[in-house]
Amino acid sequence: MKLNCDLGESYGVWQMGQDDQVMPLIDMANVACGFHAADPMVIRQTLALAARHNVEVGAHPSYNDLSGFGRRSISHTPEEIEALLLYQLGALEGMCRKEALVLSYVKPHGALNNDMMRDQVLLRAVMQATRTFRQNLPLMIPVTRNFREHQQMAADVGIPLLLEAFADRAYDDEGQLVSRRQAGAVHEDPDIIVRQARSFAEQGGVHSATGTWLELPADSLCVHGDNAEALSAITAIRLALGKPG
Amino acid sequence: MKLNCDLGESYGVWQMGQDDQVMPLIDMANVACGFHAADPMVIRQTLALAARHNVEVGAHPSYNDLSGFGRRSISHTPEEIEALLLYQLGALEGMCRKEALVLSYVKPHGALNNDMMRDQVLLRAVMQATRTFRQNLPLMIPVTRNFREHQQMAADVGIPLLLEAFADRAYDDEGQLVSRRQAGAVHEDPDIIVRQARSFAEQGGVHSATGTWLELPADSLCVHGDNAEALSAITAIRLALGKPG
Amino acid sequence: MKLNCDLGESYGVWQMGQDDQVMPLIDMANVACGFHAADPMVIRQTLALAARHNVEVGAHPSYNDLSGFGRRSISHTPEEIEALLLYQLGALEGMCRKEALVLSYVKPHGALNNDMMRDQVLLRAVMQATRTFRQNLPLMIPVTRNFREHQQMAADVGIPLLLEAFADRAYDDEGQLVSRRQAGAVHEDPDIIVRQARSFAEQGGVHSATGTWLELPADSLCVHGDNAEALSAITAIRLALGKPG
Amino acid sequence: MKLNCDLGESYGVWQMGQDDQVMPLIDMANVACGFHAADPMVIRQTLALAARHNVEVGAHPSYNDLSGFGRRSISHTPEEIEALLLYQLGALEGMCRKEALVLSYVKPHGALNNDMMRDQVLLRAVMQATRTFRQNLPLMIPVTRNFREHQQMAADVGIPLLLEAFADRAYDDEGQLVSRRQAGAVHEDPDIIVRQARSFAEQGGVHSATGTWLELPADSLCVHGDNAEALSAITAIRLALGKPG
Repeated sequence: MKLNCDLGESYGVWQMGQDDQVMPLIDMANVACGFHAADPMVIRQTLALAARHNVEVGAHPSYNDLSGFGRRSISHTPEEIEALLLYQLGALEGMCRKEALVLSYVKPHGALNNDMMRDQVLLRAVMQATRTFRQNLPLMIPVTRNFREHQQMAADVGIPLLLEAFADRAYDDEGQLVSRRQAGAVHEDPDIIVRQARSFAEQGGVHSATGTWLELPADSLCVHGDNAEALSAITAIRLALGKPG
Repeated sequence: MKLNCDLGESYGVWQMGQDDQVMPLIDMANVACGFHAADPMVIRQTLALAARHNVEVGAHPSYNDLSGFGRRSISHTPEEIEALLLYQLGALEGMCRKEALVLSYVKPHGALNNDMMRDQVLLRAVMQATRTFRQNLPLMIPVTRNFREHQQMAADVGIPLLLEAFADRAYDDEGQLVSRRQAGAVHEDPDIIVRQARSFAEQGGVHSATGTWLELPADSLCVHGDNAEALSAITAIRLALGKPG
Repeated sequence: MKLNCDLGESYGVWQMGQDDQVMPLIDMANVACGFHAADPMVIRQTLALAARHNVEVGAHPSYNDLSGFGRRSISHTPEEIEALLLYQLGALEGMCRKEALVLSYVKPHGALNNDMMRDQVLLRAVMQATRTFRQNLPLMIPVTRNFREHQQMAADVGIPLLLEAFADRAYDDEGQLVSRRQAGAVHEDPDIIVRQARSFAEQGGVHSATGTWLELPADSLCVHGDNAEALSAITAIRLALGKPG
Repeated sequence: MKLNCDLGESYGVWQMGQDDQVMPLIDMANVACGFHAADPMVIRQTLALAARHNVEVGAHPSYNDLSGFGRRSISHTPEEIEALLLYQLGALEGMCRKEALVLSYVKPHGALNNDMMRDQVLLRAVMQATRTFRQNLPLMIPVTRNFREHQQMAADVGIPLLLEAFADRAYDDEGQLVSRRQAGAVHEDPDIIVRQARSFAEQGGVHSATGTWLELPADSLCVHGDNAEALSAITAIRLALGKPG
């Protein structure tokens, strides 16, 4: 069970996150590509840090919306989505050459990620862009109860899927994340976070907020590195999953 | 003697150039990478057009200056230049995958091009970025009387050079283009343009505005496609150089 | 019956429209504010042209979306809408000082305009921003069968409305423009355009595409200046409305 | 002797500075206008904070360079400078209407500020833009040994000057700030900072790094609010100048 984290989200003089501290603790870095965050120098530094810690690099592309951090839906045709992604994946892989790295996977960011999980036309466009970029390049998407359908779509397009789960978020009976606007959506108790991480890793699923068992086979857990609590949660998860400290 | 032209310089709703008409007449397309012009959809269409006409694709990277069309100098460290170029070259090559194209060369745009010809630190940074992107990827620069020095610099870095000349611009005795602010800087007589194209192609040089012979061995002539006169100048050059109509 | 036109929509090196030719033919210029089109120099030139021809200047604010020309919906809170508009109105009025002009009205652009006509929360936010900018500054919106409701909303906020109609677009029975995706949505016959202009000016309404009479009292007709046909349509409308050639 | 500080330099999700803490301690807030930092919502919040603490609002305009934070020189004609400034001053004053504030002065940012102090054509363009925006609107510039010449230029254009000094920076014998690249350029000892503040306030000048007395009559001291040391330096200066805690 690999740990992935969104990184490289500074821009110009503006810093975000604690990449130096979180990079040694994760397996996969989702690196911003310049459309919701990051500029070429930020990407360069993030990739150098990933290389130093032997962390896999994934592209974290988004809508073109720096002022909104990629969190606002912007309507696009499938052709535009493919162009938007090929540009960003290429840009990131261009910068990978400095560190002799290769992109390991693609994980869409923010509103693009949310929108594609609600709109199969969009999801197929994202899959197609990933496939066009490189045969067998995996796409990482949130695991839901529709994971088999998503796997079939990906197989049809010709790419592998990586399924991602969250240790610190409650799931509803449909296998969707409980909205942040609802109480109990985000786990803050480290014990609950660790228990949920183990449940994904060892049982291949999790109990929903109402106690229903959900089969949700995850390849990776998404973790956060924004503050001290987040970092200690990662350390606790690593320990629980038997990963080297 | 190949003909190259700057293309793909529209942006969003704003059109520039007559790419449809000029693409069939050239050998090498210098494609904007999104920093001075072009967005992913413009790039996509430009590359599809280049593929259809079997035209080689070069990256035409620039400073990050959409509002100034990359024509204004912006100070950068060598590290920043390398990051700026790797990002743009990668983005363009990412989009090339849609058309099964590969970048054939790099030709910097506007103020970046001018600045690097005056500043060896900058030129070396551009060469290094090109080399980091891909071994043996050629860099296209204007041919001047310092071409041997430039070739030595490129050999030291490990890339080939492509030397570019202009059929429609007067050269001074130093082998530099006469400034556009001076009378006679731009040839408008088609006969003179064709004669200068043949001189580069057949004699390996040109006479300066004052009549001095300049040895300027060029691999490619830069042509323009902005208007009807420009298009008929290209056609006349093709004819004079024995290229198929 | 005044004629209004969207102008000042060039950006950097990219030209749009034929502002020089259309400005002498209109009464009101909707000037882009830099968020969907225009930069400070484009605005400066547009305002100088408006001043020369004694044309009223309106702000034409939009979502912050240069690459999409303000044609894509972007979700915003009412507070964000107010901030977005105050910024753009202020910027334009700042530039008006060069020409001793004052903003005469506000007409939202593109997706912002469409969205506010479908969403009263958004429409109220636009009205409030206009009111905050200046007491009694008119807001121009499309006239529909709900014009009385819109006038009441505006009165509640404390601003006048200007109602705008189109001479070259068919209306459906609800008083909405027929979608451009449908046949017959755009009138191309100059006689029909002129007849519809006169109908708005003299009868205070128009017949829908199916022949139903619609009371649609308009203060201004929106005209376009993109090409030769558009310019001659304006001239024909001027003649029909008894305006000086 | 008023204290001024650069504020409102966050952008989108990216935070900068501790505006909440520094605003109560200053007299004049130099508010970013969206070209080097700030978006409409950041400006809105900054102005609300300034209004709450009765702090004068100045415009802090810059070159259009978000990715470089306005710290890189970009070449402009005087006409472009005037347009650039009128746009930004207008935008800020548009937003001031929400808080019933009026711009009190203009203080250029970063590279624009540095460039205009070296280039009289540029300085005159900045003065002219300020004058065009509003008669008698003061321009704040660093006080140097040329302050009388600058005052004469300003009088010729028709605006007042506000002269600004630094308590925490060493001055050379020419009355210029010692470059940050040199040792001793920035005072870190709070006693020295307070002494220099008192010297500007009470003696109308300061001793240079080599001990030469410099007559430098300042209207305002520029302070910083980036960290705890900076905040306590402001508090110490306030105490020394007899300002209310």
